[in-house]
Amino acid sequence: MTRRLKFWGWGYEDTVLSAQEIATLEGFYAKQFGIGSYQVDATPRAEEISLRAPRIAIPSALSQVCTTDHHERLLHSYGKSFFDTVRAFARDFSNPPDVIALPRNEQEVVDVVDWAHRANAVVIPFGGGSSVVAGTEPPKNDARSVVMLNLRHLDKVLEIDTASHSARIQGGTFGPSLENQLKPSGLTLRHFPQSFEFSALGGWIATRGGGHYCTLYTHIDEFVQSIRTVTPKGICESRRLPGSGAGPSPDRLMIGSEGILGVITEAWMRLRKRPTFRAATSVRFKDIYAAADAVRAIAQAHLYPANCRVLDAGEAWVNGAGDGSHAVLVLGFESADHPMESSMARALEICGDHGGSFDKAALGKEDAHRGGASGQWRDSFLRMPYNREALVPRGIIVETFESAITWDKFRNFHDSIMNATKRAIREVTGRDGIVTCRFTHIYPDGPAPYFSFHALGKKGQMLEQCWQIKIAASEALMKAGGTITHHHAVGRDHRRWYDQQRPELFAQALRAAKKALDPNGIFNPGVLIDP
Amino acid sequence: MTRRLKFWGWGYEDTVLSAQEIATLEGFYAKQFGIGSYQVDATPRAEEISLRAPRIAIPSALSQVCTTDHHERLLHSYGKSFFDTVRAFARDFSNPPDVIALPRNEQEVVDVVDWAHRANAVVIPFGGGSSVVAGTEPPKNDARSVVMLNLRHLDKVLEIDTASHSARIQGGTFGPSLENQLKPSGLTLRHFPQSFEFSALGGWIATRGGGHYCTLYTHIDEFVQSIRTVTPKGICESRRLPGSGAGPSPDRLMIGSEGILGVITEAWMRLRKRPTFRAATSVRFKDIYAAADAVRAIAQAHLYPANCRVLDAGEAWVNGAGDGSHAVLVLGFESADHPMESSMARALEICGDHGGSFDKAALGKEDAHRGGASGQWRDSFLRMPYNREALVPRGIIVETFESAITWDKFRNFHDSIMNATKRAIREVTGRDGIVTCRFTHIYPDGPAPYFSFHALGKKGQMLEQCWQIKIAASEALMKAGGTITHHHAVGRDHRRWYDQQRPELFAQALRAAKKALDPNGIFNPGVLIDP
Repeated sequence: MTRRLKFWGWGYEDTVLSAQEIATLEGFYAKQFGIGSYQVDATPRAEEISLRAPRIAIPSALSQVCTTDHHERLLHSYGKSFFDTVRAFARDFSNPPDVIALPRNEQEVVDVVDWAHRANAVVIPFGGGSSVVAGTEPPKNDARSVVMLNLRHLDKVLEIDTASHSARIQGGTFGPSLENQLKPSGLTLRHFPQSFEFSALGGWIATRGGGHYCTLYTHIDEFVQSIRTVTPKGICESRRLPGSGAGPSPDRLMIGSEGILGVITEAWMRLRKRPTFRAATSVRFKDIYAAADAVRAIAQAHLYPANCRVLDAGEAWVNGAGDGSHAVLVLGFESADHPMESSMARALEICGDHGGSFDKAALGKEDAHRGGASGQWRDSFLRMPYNREALVPRGIIVETFESAITWDKFRNFHDSIMNATKRAIREVTGRDGIVTCRFTHIYPDGPAPYFSFHALGKKGQMLEQCWQIKIAASEALMKAGGTITHHHAVGRDHRRWYDQQRPELFAQALRAAKKALDPNGIFNPGVLIDP
Repeated sequence: MTRRLKFWGWGYEDTVLSAQEIATLEGFYAKQFGIGSYQVDATPRAEEISLRAPRIAIPSALSQVCTTDHHERLLHSYGKSFFDTVRAFARDFSNPPDVIALPRNEQEVVDVVDWAHRANAVVIPFGGGSSVVAGTEPPKNDARSVVMLNLRHLDKVLEIDTASHSARIQGGTFGPSLENQLKPSGLTLRHFPQSFEFSALGGWIATRGGGHYCTLYTHIDEFVQSIRTVTPKGICESRRLPGSGAGPSPDRLMIGSEGILGVITEAWMRLRKRPTFRAATSVRFKDIYAAADAVRAIAQAHLYPANCRVLDAGEAWVNGAGDGSHAVLVLGFESADHPMESSMARALEICGDHGGSFDKAALGKEDAHRGGASGQWRDSFLRMPYNREALVPRGIIVETFESAITWDKFRNFHDSIMNATKRAIREVTGRDGIVTCRFTHIYPDGPAPYFSFHALGKKGQMLEQCWQIKIAASEALMKAGGTITHHHAVGRDHRRWYDQQRPELFAQALRAAKKALDPNGIFNPGVLIDP
């Protein structure tokens, strides 16, 4: 029997946190919030949830492609945010999709889109469903039926061009399968978002996902060579080129389009050889400001580290990469061609200039043995998405948000967001929470700070509580000049701030472009722009 | 008195090729084509050309901003291609712009656009006017009056953010002025197109200009942090950010828009420290294929050379960087932070693996002394645009075109273009010409080949002759899978091939976007898309 994905949490039903992991989490928050014991809500079961009857009938020609299966509809109702988990545990599935389409090839994708276009049904492209911004959630104020267009059967690497280090890959290919299919060629896409295991290429492109590299190749954008998209008006495919100056990039209109223009069925992607040379270590700084100065200098030296993540003292502490007394920089260089020691040496020299301290003896050993602060951080990073489904039933609010800001504004940006979030937690929950910050990516002109907050919620009110905190944080973020998202995307959750951020005239241009490709506005309506 | 720009050629009226340079050119082509003596057409003078009367009156409110000055109208009639020079020498100024607007600030830009919008006049944004693709030429089949919107008075670096290595710069700022204004900060944009001296920031962005760096930062695109554009519907300004994942990039719609969506008045640009560490040399290869293999390996090793230009044997010979028996790779690394010797050593090791030979003793000296093949090449490169105005009156056809292609297709692409161009020259002129190829930029997934051709034309027929050759070359290029332009832009000359290259649905989206920003279609109509 195939493993089933959880409709209330992360990954497969048979993969949950161990008793030991849960005990650690419970202990941590008990100490933090003075909790004596936990009342743990039961995990929802598919059988106990009844769904609205599908509002549209599957045409007989698509009977092999579409389903109204109960579990599939549950699975496609929500993404993977805190809000999604809370609603799942509340058994609130009041707005499920009507039909799940599971095409096995591009022609079937076209058939589904044609049917939806004729039937005036909403179509929402669905990759791994790992959105944390309600990017694949059925719209609330739209009376139309909703067809989820899940591309999981379009999961092949169709062609590998070893001369040009590139491959033609189907949009529904998940991270591990993609890398497995590339492996015999010695090439890798090396795009590792936190969601890697449960997200697909098409989704990475549609949401401008952020990946493995902290510099240069921060977003999936940079790896895209050409894109093939099915729209209600037909197929849009760009010419495969290493570079071009012929008009505005057609690909850049699709990259970040979040399913409003069509569904990405294929893309030619840029690859590279698997790295064989590595240098990795971690550096301690007195605080995030000192660490920020160091990574700014590293970025502006154009040293191009693969890894250059700053964890503030709280973030390091929460994730077992520090004792809470200092910030940590996780630093790594890698290459498939040449040794990285001289780059690392120069980066560490810069760190030293900014008060960083590190263990020379540990140099180069951390990555290999997966030990030290960087190994600790990575293990914790990959395990994080599983925490949510353990914390929600225990009444703990844990959520994250991320941004980017130029260096000149960083200190004010950081402080005002930290303060606004802490203040909101106190006001909303009546007690202090934890707010931490790390950098996921760095640029010569600024960092991409990522914030996490932890608060003691009140069962039955956690949705509103978390929203109030998120609103306060987002307002501060927008006011301080940041982007409402650096790589999580806009979805439905960030719409109100995205509307402030993007130029109004660009919204008008995008609306017109959408109208040209999707005249009835069936594709993911309400995301990015109004129909 | 201010120096006047030539309306028939490159640069200022008082800057022409020396007698020595002309003698060298004459000797070269005499030998090549068996020419005994040259009949030299006289340089056109403004006084001998009469222009159609302006078809629109300047409103009194704009009398200080707009002009119908004879020389200005001549200057704005053409760009700087071979076709433009031929027409100038033929005294063919049958389709001049009616009015030249020279706003002194953004409000005056808005005033001019508002006037043109109300008057239904065509507006063509004009930076340095260095287009070689008729990108700023008045449309032929459009009965409307034409206003050239020249931004040369918007030439200031308005703000420098040294913390974020970025600056806010006006769209009309020419290369040398831009770098001079940045100089006290120690920062540089380091974007050096061949047109550097006579082109402006807004034009670089609107045409996706290619610059100094052969890898990573090949186009101006990568340096753009945010853009401010005046459109008929108002001002469109993106938020200044080091990176973002919030919807499709608003900047990427403007980058490459070639003046069809509005006029770029300002942009925040990414800068860097001036380089202090350099390593430069040149390497000989038996032919372009061996050199291509080497630079492919260098690009795929992610060594990121600043300079990595391949000249085929003919290109090296024509430009005095070789004797015509071998291809030359001009290779350079630079940094403001750390020595580049180890990168150079590794690149040379790769060259050696692919049969490249180089003089170890010359290493690092070439750039400093501006000698050797690389110095020879650079001097020749910067002087090239002046050749056209000396060759056209002597009946010599010299034109260039450029593209990009993935490595898997390179050999067939190269050969079919070389053959098609040589064949067309023979058919059109009745004798052999010279066709050469170089790489201007390289990517891990492919090179950007740049072709030049030289043919003996027939006075009075050179326009048609050159077009026939260009058509043959462009058809071969499109058929072999390339882009019709890597960094020269589309303009009016490349439209027919651009129409084949870009997805039809993208054209529809772009047309709709234009309609939203420019409902009357006044901005550069006919470029990229039809009105």
